[in-house]
Amino acid sequence: MAKKGLLIVLSGFSGAGKGTLIRKLMEAHDHYVLSVSMTTRSPREGEQEGREYFFTDEAHFTEMIDRNGFLEHAVYSGNHYGTPRAFVEEQLTAGKDVLLEIEVQGALQVKERFPEALLIYVVTPTVAELRRRLEGRGTESAEAIARRLKRAADESDTLASYEYIVINDDVTRCAEEIHGIVQGARCATARNADFMEEMRKALHAAFDH
Amino acid sequence: MAKKGLLIVLSGFSGAGKGTLIRKLMEAHDHYVLSVSMTTRSPREGEQEGREYFFTDEAHFTEMIDRNGFLEHAVYSGNHYGTPRAFVEEQLTAGKDVLLEIEVQGALQVKERFPEALLIYVVTPTVAELRRRLEGRGTESAEAIARRLKRAADESDTLASYEYIVINDDVTRCAEEIHGIVQGARCATARNADFMEEMRKALHAAFDH
Repeated sequence: MAKKGLLIVLSGFSGAGKGTLIRKLMEAHDHYVLSVSMTTRSPREGEQEGREYFFTDEAHFTEMIDRNGFLEHAVYSGNHYGTPRAFVEEQLTAGKDVLLEIEVQGALQVKERFPEALLIYVVTPTVAELRRRLEGRGTESAEAIARRLKRAADESDTLASYEYIVINDDVTRCAEEIHGIVQGARCATARNADFMEEMRKALHAAFDH
Repeated sequence: MAKKGLLIVLSGFSGAGKGTLIRKLMEAHDHYVLSVSMTTRSPREGEQEGREYFFTDEAHFTEMIDRNGFLEHAVYSGNHYGTPRAFVEEQLTAGKDVLLEIEVQGALQVKERFPEALLIYVVTPTVAELRRRLEGRGTESAEAIARRLKRAADESDTLASYEYIVINDDVTRCAEEIHGIVQGARCATARNADFMEEMRKALHAAFDH
């Protein structure tokens, strides 16, 4: 069967719990690795180089773009964000399943370049629950929450570009659902053409007379 | 999310262990039910009405065909075999995931009528292992084994018509892989268009200004 890892793109409403899902997945199954994005924005308090992001300056970021060093990159609020290509490709070749937590526009770029990537969108069970979670954080202004909700509304228009949608009503259950999607994808005949062809040849060689 | 159950068609090499996989799946998860086929062949020793098959005569079978009572039906060695439609549809509506263990030609008929059915093909890890399992049963003549192997070779030409292929190297692992396929399929955006449209409308209603 396919030995190469799978590229899994997780997007979703701000507040849907993507980060927690990813931690849960990685705790439960050791074949997942997380791709860390590179950004030109400044580190926030508590953020650590190589954990939340690789922090860099604009000159280096532009140089990375020029030598095709990103799988996808985009600008948000005047800052660059990108997924370094080398790490992802190394891990996939090593058979690891690589998780990317990125925005919709980046996800669609990845899908264009890696058509075999799995695009998964995480939502809350209801809109009321989304609002409750964002307000419950207690760390953001009403305006910031309104912006996030408005973006969720905008993103909901592009949901059909994703192949899978998961409802994060319970982190453990939802993480296992994502794991199920990955397991299932690994068994797709479209991904196992080589194995199938080998078996077909071996059967005919052995049993046709 | 989709409340209706999924129709799961399991086919595979004779000797790949489909029956054991199905028992394992049903023991581990109570949302699976097994569809029992109807046949005009005579019961073999130990077979029980409604467990291995529903046994019937040709007149009744033909009548069932005439009133569109089968999801698929086919003839093998002069006997009719078919999947009664009513049971499957009732169970799907009740939200159960229905397992069909049927041959390739029946599977393709089902896919034509139920494009949303999941077609899964079960193989042994290698051709040598397939031969070993068939010979290990000790219940069949060399000719019967040769016929089964020849059929495996023929079927391997149509593997690409299936959406998923699973290798039954370990029953527990393989059953969980099938369960993963089913979980994943339930999260496909293509199956959740209604949920997504409702969420989209609710978001826009709440947050567009």
